[in-house]
Amino acid sequence: MRIAYVVPGPMSKGPMGLREMRRREGLLNAWAFPGTTVSVVDVPTGPVSIESAYEEALCVPATIDLIMKCERDGFDAAIIGCFGDPGLEAARELATIPVVGPCESSLLLAAGLGHKFSVLTVFDSLIAGQELLAVKAGVHAKLASVRATGIPVLDLMKDPAFTKRRLIEVADACVRQDRADAFLFGCMTMSFLDLGDEVAAAVGAPAVNAGKAALKHAEMLVSMGLSHSKKAFPLPAKMQAGQPFEALRVA
Amino acid sequence: MRIAYVVPGPMSKGPMGLREMRRREGLLNAWAFPGTTVSVVDVPTGPVSIESAYEEALCVPATIDLIMKCERDGFDAAIIGCFGDPGLEAARELATIPVVGPCESSLLLAAGLGHKFSVLTVFDSLIAGQELLAVKAGVHAKLASVRATGIPVLDLMKDPAFTKRRLIEVADACVRQDRADAFLFGCMTMSFLDLGDEVAAAVGAPAVNAGKAALKHAEMLVSMGLSHSKKAFPLPAKMQAGQPFEALRVA
Amino acid sequence: MRIAYVVPGPMSKGPMGLREMRRREGLLNAWAFPGTTVSVVDVPTGPVSIESAYEEALCVPATIDLIMKCERDGFDAAIIGCFGDPGLEAARELATIPVVGPCESSLLLAAGLGHKFSVLTVFDSLIAGQELLAVKAGVHAKLASVRATGIPVLDLMKDPAFTKRRLIEVADACVRQDRADAFLFGCMTMSFLDLGDEVAAAVGAPAVNAGKAALKHAEMLVSMGLSHSKKAFPLPAKMQAGQPFEALRVA
Amino acid sequence: MRIAYVVPGPMSKGPMGLREMRRREGLLNAWAFPGTTVSVVDVPTGPVSIESAYEEALCVPATIDLIMKCERDGFDAAIIGCFGDPGLEAARELATIPVVGPCESSLLLAAGLGHKFSVLTVFDSLIAGQELLAVKAGVHAKLASVRATGIPVLDLMKDPAFTKRRLIEVADACVRQDRADAFLFGCMTMSFLDLGDEVAAAVGAPAVNAGKAALKHAEMLVSMGLSHSKKAFPLPAKMQAGQPFEALRVA
Amino acid sequence: MRIAYVVPGPMSKGPMGLREMRRREGLLNAWAFPGTTVSVVDVPTGPVSIESAYEEALCVPATIDLIMKCERDGFDAAIIGCFGDPGLEAARELATIPVVGPCESSLLLAAGLGHKFSVLTVFDSLIAGQELLAVKAGVHAKLASVRATGIPVLDLMKDPAFTKRRLIEVADACVRQDRADAFLFGCMTMSFLDLGDEVAAAVGAPAVNAGKAALKHAEMLVSMGLSHSKKAFPLPAKMQAGQPFEALRVA
Amino acid sequence: MRIAYVVPGPMSKGPMGLREMRRREGLLNAWAFPGTTVSVVDVPTGPVSIESAYEEALCVPATIDLIMKCERDGFDAAIIGCFGDPGLEAARELATIPVVGPCESSLLLAAGLGHKFSVLTVFDSLIAGQELLAVKAGVHAKLASVRATGIPVLDLMKDPAFTKRRLIEVADACVRQDRADAFLFGCMTMSFLDLGDEVAAAVGAPAVNAGKAALKHAEMLVSMGLSHSKKAFPLPAKMQAGQPFEALRVA
Repeated sequence: MRIAYVVPGPMSKGPMGLREMRRREGLLNAWAFPGTTVSVVDVPTGPVSIESAYEEALCVPATIDLIMKCERDGFDAAIIGCFGDPGLEAARELATIPVVGPCESSLLLAAGLGHKFSVLTVFDSLIAGQELLAVKAGVHAKLASVRATGIPVLDLMKDPAFTKRRLIEVADACVRQDRADAFLFGCMTMSFLDLGDEVAAAVGAPAVNAGKAALKHAEMLVSMGLSHSKKAFPLPAKMQAGQPFEALRVA
Repeated sequence: MRIAYVVPGPMSKGPMGLREMRRREGLLNAWAFPGTTVSVVDVPTGPVSIESAYEEALCVPATIDLIMKCERDGFDAAIIGCFGDPGLEAARELATIPVVGPCESSLLLAAGLGHKFSVLTVFDSLIAGQELLAVKAGVHAKLASVRATGIPVLDLMKDPAFTKRRLIEVADACVRQDRADAFLFGCMTMSFLDLGDEVAAAVGAPAVNAGKAALKHAEMLVSMGLSHSKKAFPLPAKMQAGQPFEALRVA
Repeated sequence: MRIAYVVPGPMSKGPMGLREMRRREGLLNAWAFPGTTVSVVDVPTGPVSIESAYEEALCVPATIDLIMKCERDGFDAAIIGCFGDPGLEAARELATIPVVGPCESSLLLAAGLGHKFSVLTVFDSLIAGQELLAVKAGVHAKLASVRATGIPVLDLMKDPAFTKRRLIEVADACVRQDRADAFLFGCMTMSFLDLGDEVAAAVGAPAVNAGKAALKHAEMLVSMGLSHSKKAFPLPAKMQAGQPFEALRVA
Repeated sequence: MRIAYVVPGPMSKGPMGLREMRRREGLLNAWAFPGTTVSVVDVPTGPVSIESAYEEALCVPATIDLIMKCERDGFDAAIIGCFGDPGLEAARELATIPVVGPCESSLLLAAGLGHKFSVLTVFDSLIAGQELLAVKAGVHAKLASVRATGIPVLDLMKDPAFTKRRLIEVADACVRQDRADAFLFGCMTMSFLDLGDEVAAAVGAPAVNAGKAALKHAEMLVSMGLSHSKKAFPLPAKMQAGQPFEALRVA
Repeated sequence: MRIAYVVPGPMSKGPMGLREMRRREGLLNAWAFPGTTVSVVDVPTGPVSIESAYEEALCVPATIDLIMKCERDGFDAAIIGCFGDPGLEAARELATIPVVGPCESSLLLAAGLGHKFSVLTVFDSLIAGQELLAVKAGVHAKLASVRATGIPVLDLMKDPAFTKRRLIEVADACVRQDRADAFLFGCMTMSFLDLGDEVAAAVGAPAVNAGKAALKHAEMLVSMGLSHSKKAFPLPAKMQAGQPFEALRVA
Repeated sequence: MRIAYVVPGPMSKGPMGLREMRRREGLLNAWAFPGTTVSVVDVPTGPVSIESAYEEALCVPATIDLIMKCERDGFDAAIIGCFGDPGLEAARELATIPVVGPCESSLLLAAGLGHKFSVLTVFDSLIAGQELLAVKAGVHAKLASVRATGIPVLDLMKDPAFTKRRLIEVADACVRQDRADAFLFGCMTMSFLDLGDEVAAAVGAPAVNAGKAALKHAEMLVSMGLSHSKKAFPLPAKMQAGQPFEALRVA
């Protein structure tokens, strides 16, 4: 199967660049089941990184356009490459191939690992949004806590040793103080540091890599012949009534 | 005080046109407390009407730009003129003047009218989204039901007598079958038909006009010297760190 | 419009006296929209102050009598002047004009300011009751915490500087430890100290003055032509069956 | 042990009269464990029957006075003789002997009989109040439904055969449509008709008699040496500070 | 009435032995209402003590066999003698006499003592299971906390003074830090130490002895002529269809 | 990877027999990702089929023994082959390889397909148990309904055309009346009929096959190097203290 990992910002033009996109593509292909190929693609314009509701809103229109292109290009599933799952409902309205969001995928995976889990996020200002994502995924009852590392997304890779120490420190607080049985890396850059095993070993609880979780979710759906329900995410009413996609918008 | 009512679609270029915008502006000014002036403005491009998650996502970037312009132009508060409250969190991150959404305003008002209330929406496909908005507003515990009229937004004004009969029929089901004590018009076009008193009288329960509710919410906040909490909706981190607004985006 | 602020204890005969009633009347009129007049009235007998379930129960019969008199006297709305909202349901059964309670009004207002809010109350023994009021208002999901200052109602005005320091200290704990985005003064005497702006500035989160919130709630309802739902608060069954009000009671 | 059953209205002066009070006393004593004596007493003035929030509020001050007298007279426990549990918290603040309310007692008993239970109440207007009592008791999660018979309290004994048929009809709807495993008689007059076994047999699910449930609850607490927690229901603060009971009130 | 207290492990063959079984029988008979006789019986094989989900699962088949024998032997009710209530649903499917579990009995009793309560358990690893039992009992909304003493079941009686100090320490944390109004001994051996009055006095909040609570629950049900609902706990379908009990199992 | 599918009853000795076990093994291997081998094994004694809490309790000890043997035999993961997930927590305490239950696996998968889902179960008497399993999985908030087909497990394969019609009828009620966006086959025999695509097509919503879901869940965990958290499911305390497994039990 062919899976598109859609970065909802112009990563190739930003500080991380094409090299980082290719590194992530390599990791995803290494994590995949035999027979799966993953392509990492990004949108032409949008936010440098996504750390606020505004930046998230900014990225959605172009991201949906790119997901629709991936469906036309024959991909079997698409992953939205940001832990906030920006545009997930909208993309599911327009696409028939499975579209997964790393946050939803990770939350559902973590729910099966124990009684409670925690999410490691970037800033305190993102905690309320993460809690709402747990409500949307339906697993809020298992959310022990959301805790922030305080390291901006674009700084996470600057000093990996410092980042790792901070991830261990925050994950440990989740396990010790909030009684989390497992924890998630609530940011794609955090996940692609691929530090899960080390942080899990340090705190004695499993770590969920959001990139891996989204990939496995997509592979599972494709292999089962399933996609999101069109009862839940129907085509926009105007298109159901026969209007073309372009008619939804006044230029 | 001066309040901007920001239509998140290019209404003046669409089928309803400038005339309908001016009619709504007239109603809002008639509903206002003495001393309040309301201006209705719309965005230059975007969805014809908003009846899906995709159309909602599509409108947000331009809507936020316009709200920021309203703040610079000296308005005391802004109302997002769509019942889905598109971009509410994002706008609150960037604005310091109160920004209100008709859905949140109506839900909080209705919560004070009785034990339970219902929302009249446009399509069945919008029910889950409305339920999530009740979770976001914090009043999900009082939501008796969301029921759809099935009349597309752009058709609501075509046959007002039919629309009124259908609103009464659906509101009556909310009161009779779902034990709602009050109900909301969950769509701005539905609200600006100004049929609340007639529908309320027919079913024997108060009706909340979302346009009035948003206006009163904005007036209340301005008159109390309050705005949304910057603990909840802080400026994006990059701007807190000194970068200009423009730096959030890669063109 | 004319609004009655009904004090559910004999304040004019108590330690605060008529002077404090007139001071509060002055503040309410200063806070009102143009065209609103507020009269502060009190009951002839009842509790000195309300700091327990017993004192709250004690005040209700006389308070309802006075609210009914206000309706007969042509007031457009009534505010129950105690943060416990004593007798709110009972008064709404008997009155057709809007009757608002400062707790419900403040909770619904605060719910629109951020993701979570806290209530500052008087004693630890009132916390459970405040939580139940949040359930009744439908916004329990947004209640970050209820914290007590420990200062008896009748002592709040004795040393305003001490009271202010204590309010800041407790509000700060709500914001810092409980992640409240906003907070309420959960006591009318606390609210009429009019320290909201100072406390808000000190802790960096908006403060809701319960007196102002109740007033704005009443003004909003009257200006919208709304009142509480008679589906939720019907006239007592005996009166619906034709018996006079007096027949409800055996002397 | 000696238990006082305190009727919160002047039953001896009303249509049911002293004879009905003595009949209920006889039933309670017949239901009691060996060694228990129950006395039924009523307040001198108050509501004829309690079918609204107003009538409930009206009865509380005199009821609490009578409960305090019962404690001084040496009773080991008191039952508030109305299914709305009027004044329960206030009475517990002032009394040290156990004070139980039939609603709370019945709800906690029913919670142990199956997964879900329903309450049979008098009027539709009482449903929301009953739901709140389930929240207060902590067992709202097990409440399948509240359904009304529509028979006024004072008419329940007029045509017992009709009442029985109606109780069976409503209980059957609870079991068949709402999936209740058990049901409560949510009214003392309904309970003292002593029709539980017949109605239970007719619908195939256990019926909880609120009078029996309150009695057993009181006997259980006394025999275990337990009473309500003074952490939850402390003496009013003024009395803790040394003021006499009389000082709480301004005449 | 005759009540069987069924120990779900072979206590008479274990370290506590027959002497401890007889001591517990003595306490139960001393706690009972006049006219009640309690017999303590144990299963022939099974876990030494129950401190994990595995040990709990291990005990159930033999425990149910013994409860069924007690019903055939004419007992009026059965108590499952372990705070995890192992096999409660299964036993209720097969028995018509009331079967009670000390955890459910204690939770429902504690729910009537105040706003919130806590459970004292043995190990941290049992906290999630106790929370689920509160969900099953329907009173999760009143659960302030579950805290562990860390003393293994078989060590609780070794140094009673140490155990008492530890119980006071943990109960105090529940009351002080978690705002519990009452607390339960969440283990039968803990309960049969009969230290409730001393621990309650030390922390100023009522203590619920799970053995007493289960006994009173059973006595209450028998005296009211009630048992668990067969709507909730029906006979296994194969037996309803006429097959004998033995046919459920392939040897 | 090698996965054991552990049937918690002696299927090879029962009416379905070894032939059905081999048929299921064939399906599982056909559904698996390349590189996965599935072996279907059953316990020597236990229930004929599992349709009650009693039959579920009966199967657990032998099932756990077999799972432990599978771990010793080098399997990479184990699936408990009953939709009630009997013994899931207990098995996870003792095993270090991933142990999954089809109910938990299906619920978490379905939660990602839409806003709400329903479970098709066997009998009405299993509804409450299924709801509790949704609580345990953490996704109760997304459970639209549980509906029973009323066909005993052992009859499901007798008339596949009738079974299919009944499945479509019940699934349709879930989608139409309960607003489910997707539905699960809440029984392994129902799932191994492999009718998912036909039923899904008939009702227009995705169907989750519990056997496929459990298999994919197991494959996902193994391929990610994850297993259930030992914080949530620790080894029994006696074994942590050094005692052998055999010491947990008195023969």
